[in-house]
Amino acid sequence: MTEQTSATDLSIPPYGEDTVSERMQSILDTGTALFAEKGYDATSMRDIASAAGVSKALLYHHFTSKEDIYARIAFSATQNLNQYVWDRIPADGTAAEKLRAFMVAAAQFFTHHRSAWVAASNAFWSDPDRHRMEQRLARRRAFEMMLRDIVRAGVESGEFGDVDPAMTGRLVLSGINWMHRWHDPEKTLTPEEIVNQYADILLGGLMAKAG
Amino acid sequence: MTEQTSATDLSIPPYGEDTVSERMQSILDTGTALFAEKGYDATSMRDIASAAGVSKALLYHHFTSKEDIYARIAFSATQNLNQYVWDRIPADGTAAEKLRAFMVAAAQFFTHHRSAWVAASNAFWSDPDRHRMEQRLARRRAFEMMLRDIVRAGVESGEFGDVDPAMTGRLVLSGINWMHRWHDPEKTLTPEEIVNQYADILLGGLMAKAG
Repeated sequence: MTEQTSATDLSIPPYGEDTVSERMQSILDTGTALFAEKGYDATSMRDIASAAGVSKALLYHHFTSKEDIYARIAFSATQNLNQYVWDRIPADGTAAEKLRAFMVAAAQFFTHHRSAWVAASNAFWSDPDRHRMEQRLARRRAFEMMLRDIVRAGVESGEFGDVDPAMTGRLVLSGINWMHRWHDPEKTLTPEEIVNQYADILLGGLMAKAG
Repeated sequence: MTEQTSATDLSIPPYGEDTVSERMQSILDTGTALFAEKGYDATSMRDIASAAGVSKALLYHHFTSKEDIYARIAFSATQNLNQYVWDRIPADGTAAEKLRAFMVAAAQFFTHHRSAWVAASNAFWSDPDRHRMEQRLARRRAFEMMLRDIVRAGVESGEFGDVDPAMTGRLVLSGINWMHRWHDPEKTLTPEEIVNQYADILLGGLMAKAG
């Protein structure tokens, strides 16, 4: 995508360290799966240690608490989301193509990281680490700005009507964020198919005959 | 509004009794305010009794538990929402007018019953009363059907493009339902203003120049 103000925000380094060790990543993956399967409250540090095949002592060496594990999962979910979506927006596409690409990429990410995404959504305001919380807020802003920039460019070029980029972004993100509250992964429509339909509607379906 | 299949679903009688006594209603209003102010977990039956000016014995005479109070608040919120919105849809309007009226009415209801609405949303799957839970599900379906009927009529008359009524309804409801996760009541935009902008976007703003 062409350089924009939001691009700089996307380069925020990972929290604390540049890379997470393989063992830590494996524990985080185990935690993600357990939180998704049993729920956050019903999952104990003992469960995570046991499922990850490490001692409780080692678990506490890497992570201060269950909240810490949860917050790290949510944190890396938001970080990876921004990069994943950014990489899939066609730099020379129309605003409509970019908007659809943004929505499809977000839905794809959501499909493959459903549990981390739900964790991220639920844990948003409860991260005990203030600094990490602020980084996550910055990333969420960057994510929203990426979307608003696409809409704004469409409005300025005359491709879109005179809509408010912030409100349009809210509506798009509402559709994506609310999906996990009703979407049944067993059903035939995938999240990508759903947001493609949302994009059809937003990109002119409703008033196609009124133009 | 003209008679439609969903009209019959809206006539589901209130749970258990036709009217709630003035005292019970006053206790429910007190509970709604306390849950909104302190949060559900931090609010005790003692708090509710004290704030409502009744003894704990009398409180337990009317309600079996805190969960019961919460579920009743959430239940009447969904019941009243359907009726409120239904009454505000112009029977002889265009599909676009009806869709906007639906969105504005839902947002108005949300504004005036914010805490009950959030309670309804949070408590949706946790009602201990199975029969009441089923009635609420029926009401939620009726609410969605009302919306889909509006979109379907617009598609069939050719006023709207060939969009899927169910997916369009999901997108509209996502915008309305997600609002409480980000909307700050202290800010200048009201929920009605927000959904009016959503309606502008959905009703052709984005591709106005592409028609």
